[in-house]
Formats: sequence, C-alpha cells, structure tokens
Amino acid sequence: MKLALSLGRRGMGQCAPNPAVGCVLVRDGRIIGRGWTQPGGRPHAEVVALAQAGDAKGTTAYVTLEPCAHHGKTPPCAQALIDAGVSRVVVALGDPDPRVDGGGITMLRAAGIDVTIGVCEDEARRDHAGFLLKTTEGRPWVTLKLSNSFDGRIATATGESQWITGPEARRYVHALRARHDAVMVGGGTARDDDPSLTVRGLGVSRQPTRIVLSRHLDLPQDSHLSRTAKDVPVILCHGGKAPKTRISHWQESGATCVEVGETEGVLDPVQVLQALGTQGLTRIFCEGGGGLAASLLMAGQVDELIGFTAGIALGAEGRPSLAAMGIERLGDAPRFKLVETRNLGGDALHRWARS
Amino acid sequence: MKLALSLGRRGMGQCAPNPAVGCVLVRDGRIIGRGWTQPGGRPHAEVVALAQAGDAKGTTAYVTLEPCAHHGKTPPCAQALIDAGVSRVVVALGDPDPRVDGGGITMLRAAGIDVTIGVCEDEARRDHAGFLLKTTEGRPWVTLKLSNSFDGRIATATGESQWITGPEARRYVHALRARHDAVMVGGGTARDDDPSLTVRGLGVSRQPTRIVLSRHLDLPQDSHLSRTAKDVPVILCHGGKAPKTRISHWQESGATCVEVGETEGVLDPVQVLQALGTQGLTRIFCEGGGGLAASLLMAGQVDELIGFTAGIALGAEGRPSLAAMGIERLGDAPRFKLVETRNLGGDALHRWARS
Repeated sequence: MKLALSLGRRGMGQCAPNPAVGCVLVRDGRIIGRGWTQPGGRPHAEVVALAQAGDAKGTTAYVTLEPCAHHGKTPPCAQALIDAGVSRVVVALGDPDPRVDGGGITMLRAAGIDVTIGVCEDEARRDHAGFLLKTTEGRPWVTLKLSNSFDGRIATATGESQWITGPEARRYVHALRARHDAVMVGGGTARDDDPSLTVRGLGVSRQPTRIVLSRHLDLPQDSHLSRTAKDVPVILCHGGKAPKTRISHWQESGATCVEVGETEGVLDPVQVLQALGTQGLTRIFCEGGGGLAASLLMAGQVDELIGFTAGIALGAEGRPSLAAMGIERLGDAPRFKLVETRNLGGDALHRWARS
Repeated sequence: MKLALSLGRRGMGQCAPNPAVGCVLVRDGRIIGRGWTQPGGRPHAEVVALAQAGDAKGTTAYVTLEPCAHHGKTPPCAQALIDAGVSRVVVALGDPDPRVDGGGITMLRAAGIDVTIGVCEDEARRDHAGFLLKTTEGRPWVTLKLSNSFDGRIATATGESQWITGPEARRYVHALRARHDAVMVGGGTARDDDPSLTVRGLGVSRQPTRIVLSRHLDLPQDSHLSRTAKDVPVILCHGGKAPKTRISHWQESGATCVEVGETEGVLDPVQVLQALGTQGLTRIFCEGGGGLAASLLMAGQVDELIGFTAGIALGAEGRPSLAAMGIERLGDAPRFKLVETRNLGGDALHRWARS
C-alpha cells in the first residue's frame, strides 16, 4: 500500500477533477502490475496496473481509493478488477463521491472478492485531501505559500523581490506548483510581476491552471498570461462590476472568466473557491500577494501553509507578506500547527497544517 | 577535548569578563580531574581540575583555551600546571589577550612540557567567540532574538503579545539568557512590558546583567528593573541630553548609567557595544524591540540571529519585529546564513550566523 500511495502521488496536480490514485497488483509476493491515474485523469490507476500485469488472475490489488462503481468517461474499475479475476482487493480509503460511496466495495464483494478496507487510511486521507474536500464541501484544497525575509517582508519598499529566497527554495516552489491543479495569485501580483505561473525545469507533462483574482479585471491586457492562455488554462475571477469589454478581451485570449460575489470590498474567498471547485479543481497553490493571502486566512480557507524564511532583514518599510487582517486580540488570529521544518538550500522551510 | 569543551560551556554567561574555559586531566586513559571556570570567573578551569585530581603528576591536560601566563586576581594557570607536574598539555586555541598571547604556551614549553595546540580549534573559536571579540575588537558578541508570527509580527495592533510562541520556545529563551552575560532591550520594550529580564525556572547561580538603551532615560522609575537593580545588575545606556535627575534616580536604585553618543536620532550601536565591552561584558542577548534590533542590524553588529516563527497570522497592522531600516535595494540588506532549523514545541526555531 505504501508503494501504491507513492505511485498515486505521481498523478497529483495532473489528473483533476479525478483523484490521484495508485494501484499495485501482487501475486505470490511478487509485484506484477503498477499503475497510477494518468494526466488528465484517465485511464485510472487500476486499469493501468491491469494492463501492465497482462494476466491478473488470482492477484491481490492494493488501491489507494475505493475503485469506482459507475460508468463515467470510463467503465467502472471495480468491474475491471472482477473481469480480470483478481481474488483480493485491499483499499486504503472509501470514496465519498455519491456515485461510488461504498458501491465499489459492494460490487467487488458481490463477485466473491475478499475486500479489506482502511489500510494506511490516514496517509491516503492526506493524499486525497483535495479530492475529498471537493467531493464533500465543493471547494478545492488550498495550500498557501509565503516566501519572506525573516521579518516577514516579501519585497523592499520599492518593490524589489528578486530574489529573497535562494535557487533551491525557488525550485521547490516549482515542484509544489506541479503537485497542484492550479496556481492562484491576486490581481496586484499579476500586475506587478507579470508572472507566467508555469512549472519550469521539471519536465511536467501537464501545466497547472493559472488563476488570478481581480475584482475589476484591471490587469494588463498584454501579459504573459494573456499571450499563453490558449496553451495553458487561465481562470480569472472577477466581481459583478468588471467591464464587459475586459471580460470579452480575456475570453478572446482564451481565458475563462468567472463572476463571483464580493464581501467587504474584496472577492468573497468562499465563493471564489466554490466556483473553482465547480471548474473541476481539487488542489490550489496560492502564491499571494498579501491581500489575497490575508483574505483566505481570515475566511478560514487555508488548509496548508508553507513558509520560506530567508536570512535577510528588510525592515518595516518592506512590503508585508500579509495585508491588514483587522485582528486586535491574539485569540482571534488564525493558528496553524507545525508539521515540518527544514533547511532548504539556506532558507528555512516550515510547513503548517490547520490546527 | 570534546568533554573539556562541553564542561567549558557550563560557565557560559556566568564568568565574564573571563572566558568560559573547560579542562580535563587524563592519566593512563582515565579521567582524574574535570574543571570549568567558576561563576564570577574564578577559580579558573585548570585550578578546579587540578584540585579534583589531587595528584596530577604525569597527566595530560586538555584545555579549551591557552592557560594564562599573567598574575591577575589569580596566579597564572600555566604555572599551576607546571607545579602539579603535568607532562603534556593539549590546547584548543591560543589566547589573543595581550597579557597571554602565546605566553602560556612558552611558559609550559620552557618547563619541558609537551604542548599541542589547535585541537578542536573551530569549535573552541565558536565557544569563546564573545571573549575573542571583546579582546580583539573591544565589543561583546551579540545574539539577536526575534519571536514572531509567521508574517513577522511581534504583537497585535493593540500591543497584545502574550503569547505568540509556546511554552517550550519561551523556556528556551530563558536558557539562552542564562548562556549570555547580559540581556538587552530597547527603551520602548522596557516601557511597554515592564520586564524583569531574569532567568526563571532554570536554577542558575548567577543572573545576567540587564541592559536598557534609552536616549532620554524616559523609563518608568518604579519598575521591576529599578526595584531589583541592587540584586541583579542593571546598566542603562543613555544619550548626552538625558536629565541629570533621572540619571541620579537610577544610580540611587543601584543601576549603572553609561552615556554614549548618538547617530541619526538613536544611540550609536557601535558606541553602545564598545561601552558594554568596557563594562566587562562578552556575550549579549538582545530581545528587541524592533527599533533596537533594526539599528543593530544596520550597523552590522549582530553576530547571531535566533528566530522563532509561530503558527499564527496577525496581519499588517500587527507590530513589526524590525523597525524601518531605509533599505531600498535587496543588495543593501543584511544577510545571514542558516545554521539550524528545528521544531521547538510547535514553533519553528531557525538559527542564523553572520554570512
């Protein structure tokens, strides 16, 4: 199952809206098939592993999520396992998708297959967190990244920010982008940095969707994002008052424009994430800026926090990593639990979970 | 020598202006004496180890710093080793103090003792860094501590700061205080927090000196510091225009008042540290606030930086850990090298050295 989980992770960020599942087929203690959900979400892990095995009669299948029981764009995987003559299926975690929800297990058992469920369940729950959140709450998992000086600044007063962290931390950020379905920034970052938000230097087969939140869509119309929107998806979330001409300009560029409601003068983060869930996204990597990060934190919509602290002091005029949050008492401030801390090429990496 | 170094560290923060030396006496592979410089700086490590051994004839002495050769408040340790009949001395590092500066080695060799120098020299140089800096540059070693939220804030907008970090991090701060000769804060911190700046809960035999920098000595005259200045030393650094009445009030409380020059509206950090070196201090632990920390950093007077990042977000209205530093370009910002990163009871500890 550990191997199946690690195979499944290969698909992370590559197969939304489908879960990144891993599957291993074992006969007489030997691995005869390995598979993971392929880029774009098909074929599913079980089908890949069965194809690799050729003859899978009498094998045990280790699968990181309950095999699907419904006819979607592919026939149900539970049926494929039955047809192949698999004799035992070990599942890490049940699939809460109402179209499955125990149906895969029932189907396998009805066919006389011995099914065990709950092996490495906690680990599987972490790996599938984005898919599970989207299935149960309709919104994607949000990882927020903050790279700052050790006094919490992301740029000097004049806006210089390249580079605060070192090359290893920046490369790690690209690896993080690759493991998410989408990279999200606020309008200010899109205006100031003209970012491409792609994964570079890692040879990924599928680039993450790029998302920009901009209430009035006041973004430069000639930008990296607009020039490449036909090649790598761009989603723009805007408010009800964004000018129609800007919306159509971006749509012509190839971007998807999504209108969401506003709250306290910013796009409502809860509505934004629901809309992105509807777009099929399960894992979002937010890279700021400070306004968007603060609004997500205050709305309780950040599931994981990844901080990079660099050995540089910028002082109080530097740009803050988080905008004003209106917090007067410590008890009202969002808190996170430390999961990991590490020296990453000279920058301190710290990873936090919702506490 | 590793043992001698670890014994020596027991005296750190306890024996200024003397160095915190360790000494181990070995005969036929057995340890027969161990010593370290005692609180207040006397007796020296060698004398303690010799007394424990009783008969030290024919032993090898491992000493973390060149034995002294001059009559100070104690007779020279080099002579004590000769008189005891030690046959070999292994020294980690020469003592640059002009009253020693090779004199101890010369004295031992002249008495026919076999002397090896340079064993574990780098480690000894780190341990004696405060003593070495004071001897060669006249100023103490400065460790700066910053405890903040993950967006670099040390308190909410209303000033609430208890507690951002957890109990383990706070206990560690007390251990750090204990390993320094003095704890230093700016006037703002002294006014806002009325701190005692003592080591609590660790049973130390000698409390660090408390230092406050206050240009006009506008500190509350009835405070923890003023009430306890006769028990644990207090040094107040002030500017030339501090009112005489305030100076005499503090002197009557038992504090030492030291006048230093000003630069750009603050006490000149270089002059402050020279003055503190003159007071016999070799290792200073600075706990902020943001103004003092920024001025030390800009003056290049911070030797080690210890950051605690807590899993809490306070937003841009929170009080910054560093005040304005006037930095426009990243190239002008002070940089540090990451030495260590660790999960300390749920807070991320990161330790940085001058780069």
